[in-house]
Amino acid sequence: MPDLDPKRLSDLIDQKSSRRAFIARASALSIALPAASAALTACSPNDKGGADSTGTGQAATTGGGQDSLLHNSDSRLDSAVLKGQHGTLSATPDALRGAEQTAFHRYDPVLPPLATGGRVQLHWHAREAPIRISDDTVVAGWTFEGDIPGPVVHCRVGDTVEFTLTNDSDIPHSMDFHAAQIDPKVAFRSVLKNQSVTFTYKPKWAGAFMYHCGTAPVLMHIGSGMYGAIVVSPREPLPSAKEFVLVQSEFYLASVAAGVRAFDYQKMLSTVPDFVVFNGRLNQYIKEPIRVKLGERVRFWVVSTGPQHPCNFHVVGEQFDTVYLGAPPGTPIRGVQTWAVPPGGGMCFELLCDVTGEFPFVNHGFGHGQKGAIGILSVES
Amino acid sequence: MPDLDPKRLSDLIDQKSSRRAFIARASALSIALPAASAALTACSPNDKGGADSTGTGQAATTGGGQDSLLHNSDSRLDSAVLKGQHGTLSATPDALRGAEQTAFHRYDPVLPPLATGGRVQLHWHAREAPIRISDDTVVAGWTFEGDIPGPVVHCRVGDTVEFTLTNDSDIPHSMDFHAAQIDPKVAFRSVLKNQSVTFTYKPKWAGAFMYHCGTAPVLMHIGSGMYGAIVVSPREPLPSAKEFVLVQSEFYLASVAAGVRAFDYQKMLSTVPDFVVFNGRLNQYIKEPIRVKLGERVRFWVVSTGPQHPCNFHVVGEQFDTVYLGAPPGTPIRGVQTWAVPPGGGMCFELLCDVTGEFPFVNHGFGHGQKGAIGILSVES
Amino acid sequence: MPDLDPKRLSDLIDQKSSRRAFIARASALSIALPAASAALTACSPNDKGGADSTGTGQAATTGGGQDSLLHNSDSRLDSAVLKGQHGTLSATPDALRGAEQTAFHRYDPVLPPLATGGRVQLHWHAREAPIRISDDTVVAGWTFEGDIPGPVVHCRVGDTVEFTLTNDSDIPHSMDFHAAQIDPKVAFRSVLKNQSVTFTYKPKWAGAFMYHCGTAPVLMHIGSGMYGAIVVSPREPLPSAKEFVLVQSEFYLASVAAGVRAFDYQKMLSTVPDFVVFNGRLNQYIKEPIRVKLGERVRFWVVSTGPQHPCNFHVVGEQFDTVYLGAPPGTPIRGVQTWAVPPGGGMCFELLCDVTGEFPFVNHGFGHGQKGAIGILSVES
Repeated sequence: MPDLDPKRLSDLIDQKSSRRAFIARASALSIALPAASAALTACSPNDKGGADSTGTGQAATTGGGQDSLLHNSDSRLDSAVLKGQHGTLSATPDALRGAEQTAFHRYDPVLPPLATGGRVQLHWHAREAPIRISDDTVVAGWTFEGDIPGPVVHCRVGDTVEFTLTNDSDIPHSMDFHAAQIDPKVAFRSVLKNQSVTFTYKPKWAGAFMYHCGTAPVLMHIGSGMYGAIVVSPREPLPSAKEFVLVQSEFYLASVAAGVRAFDYQKMLSTVPDFVVFNGRLNQYIKEPIRVKLGERVRFWVVSTGPQHPCNFHVVGEQFDTVYLGAPPGTPIRGVQTWAVPPGGGMCFELLCDVTGEFPFVNHGFGHGQKGAIGILSVES
Repeated sequence: MPDLDPKRLSDLIDQKSSRRAFIARASALSIALPAASAALTACSPNDKGGADSTGTGQAATTGGGQDSLLHNSDSRLDSAVLKGQHGTLSATPDALRGAEQTAFHRYDPVLPPLATGGRVQLHWHAREAPIRISDDTVVAGWTFEGDIPGPVVHCRVGDTVEFTLTNDSDIPHSMDFHAAQIDPKVAFRSVLKNQSVTFTYKPKWAGAFMYHCGTAPVLMHIGSGMYGAIVVSPREPLPSAKEFVLVQSEFYLASVAAGVRAFDYQKMLSTVPDFVVFNGRLNQYIKEPIRVKLGERVRFWVVSTGPQHPCNFHVVGEQFDTVYLGAPPGTPIRGVQTWAVPPGGGMCFELLCDVTGEFPFVNHGFGHGQKGAIGILSVES
Repeated sequence: MPDLDPKRLSDLIDQKSSRRAFIARASALSIALPAASAALTACSPNDKGGADSTGTGQAATTGGGQDSLLHNSDSRLDSAVLKGQHGTLSATPDALRGAEQTAFHRYDPVLPPLATGGRVQLHWHAREAPIRISDDTVVAGWTFEGDIPGPVVHCRVGDTVEFTLTNDSDIPHSMDFHAAQIDPKVAFRSVLKNQSVTFTYKPKWAGAFMYHCGTAPVLMHIGSGMYGAIVVSPREPLPSAKEFVLVQSEFYLASVAAGVRAFDYQKMLSTVPDFVVFNGRLNQYIKEPIRVKLGERVRFWVVSTGPQHPCNFHVVGEQFDTVYLGAPPGTPIRGVQTWAVPPGGGMCFELLCDVTGEFPFVNHGFGHGQKGAIGILSVES
């Protein structure tokens, strides 16, 4: 298993975070920015590391260097990979700084209110930051807006989404909204540190859509935390309901210090996750359940960001009266115990809370569900 | 790979099965009953063993003891784990007793007749028992009613299901019916040895629903054999057909003696099964096919219990004229070669047998299908 | 991991390819043709190798020999396995001959024109051949017509498909069309070297159907390259569109020489692929995109041959306005970002190209997608 020998966190982060200093740390963690033509398959199985999926995780450097920093105009043609002697990890200085002091916070699952005036204006930052995912574990995250997942966006079909991403990180990043129909070569292009990209779109279909960093290797950027959900409600409102957003994702981790772990690219390629979670935390809605009242309708907008596995969504003791297979309200199906949301996909699940009780919602693929994807829906009188 | 050194079976079971004696066997297999607050995540990745999914399977004891036996009123707050020096196995004395003499029997795939009088009365026992899954392999099972899967239940929408579970085992167990809408904290609660739980419900939707033990860690209880199918027919009958039930499940096994294997929790977390089977036996319907007559309609109620993987259901040489995506007869789709039943889910497949021949039914994910999920549908003139 | 020590290719293929010589190479690669009753489970987990999915891959010989060559009348009752000291590999002499000189060619994704006169006449050969899947990798393939995938077939519902397979290989092979309703025991039976099988059928349903070799162990034959797509268009034409075929498959490989790799049965059982590709090549449609014009409708017929995993199909920067869940035009759903095509299944995806740009199409399960399942749809004005 590729992980660094645990060491004192201060050893890792006691250094300047300027790009020059960062790149210079070649012996421990080196940044590789492959030249244009090689980039989309950077860290692909063409590399020794990737091809040998059961191997040691010793990944070769994929070339690049200062020169390639100049070739960055095209989102599918740039990439950044951090490689240590034990593989490719997300453990950048920014992703580790202050890790031990990082507080746990519950990720609010409530769907935020609709944007007003038919317009959503977002200026987000891509940045690396430590995130506490349980009492005793912090991960070295790559994030949108400093959290995993990034913020939930909520608008309606036909609204205007004006989006700007500024990159605070030494690693190129980008934004790919599944709710947009737009040339990704332009809109979803990668930007370097302190640079920005802006684009505008109008969602055409309702649904729970994934967004994520699309910079190559996409697996590394999604796998290190750069994802979230945009919920697009139909113009004609769905039945009145309490609405929640659940983003399922997998964590593939190496140890970098006591209680601090980094996302591990070689492990991602093995597709056996350490944790599978809703909204970025292990079992967070067991301790503090999602609470609704008897008689209310509940609507879950479920996004499965992977990077690899579906969410086999199920509520213990309940049945979904409606799952929309197409853009809601399209193609509703009735009387569903469990339905799979594919990785990179999203679906909308509804149930009527006509019984009080504590109803666990789970990924019923329990080889994964048992790894952190369990919460409680509490229906109270 | 966590497995015990093969040893003579008599060494393992030559001891009293009383709870006291059983718990006392701490050095080989110890029972841990975590206290309430820690229980739902017992054996979760918070444990060393689970977090390190490629690790050695050395699971730490999660605490508990006699005291925690008192805290058992809540199905999501109790748990039981058997831990040996090589991991968590299902190899209890009861699950092994008489293993070598256990006979093979074919699991009848025919859908049993409907309950009469609109009422199903079931009094089942949770108990550990060895099950012969092929000529040369016996597994140390945790069961409902002494078989894997448990019995098939058949009723109609709106019928009354009166269910009682009595636990004959040292390990707490419970029952979770996916066909029920009911407070799981009460109805699906765990019960200790010689105790019982009773609940009543009326299925609201038609379909092929999973039932299973929901005691934490759920992965261990499902993975060790505690599952089955309840088929709920719609009030308005579906087209006349020969009806069969297929429950697909995965076996993750360690060796405990020659020809005797135990379910292995650490291996379940790795999600690479040893066997994938229909109705609990390897390829049992090759030797003794499912037989129907030319011109008959066949209806398969397929439940995928996992614990992790879907069943990509396919019949070689045939096509389904109907797969119901919602509760039958809801949302039929036509002309289907293969459809995935998610883990924790169930679906209803129909085909018209207008050609004679021998038609293998398979999980067409052949990495799994090849591990035992192949049978024969024989259409005879 | 079971692979042969890299050695000079000439050492492997410098021998006669006659069956006698081939079978005689027992110490390096031996062919086993199990007797009838044992065959369908040949290389199943009943074998030592299969049962221990995390084991060493040392597969026992499953018996057979010259005698069993006589028992070959039944497709589900014959089998062929190549076993070396390191496991079961596809590295036959024919599959390796000329490997280093094999040229790369792009697999044409364009749906071929419909058969004329309502009749498709095909005489194909099963044969082993090296296939270059990237600049630096050649695989020892088992093929239909010398390529992986085999040729795309295109007809309409109710057309007549007359098919003959002649086997040029020492290993028995067969053909299973998912578009056919026919007795597989007869039509899909295995044939020995220089023998042929012929059958005729009329597809009843529209769709993208898999075809594959069904000789046991099916996993080995599918996993070694014997698959492809037959597209059955409905009688009533779908909306005018540019139509493409994408066959997703997984490669599980061992090294046999520098740059030459063989399909590895034990690795297939582990279900972690080295490569996941569209139309048999790594990322081939990045270098040479699929090109359409602004305003055109694009229809992708996507077949997922596995052998194990689904294709979570997604187009970056676009949304499918239509995915047909049943036989097209049946059960269309609207506004889809990603949908899973199960292994052994096929589906039809449509989008309207109303924006110019470069739109990557991917398997959005990026643990797999990153292993080669990325291409570009270029929409040009």
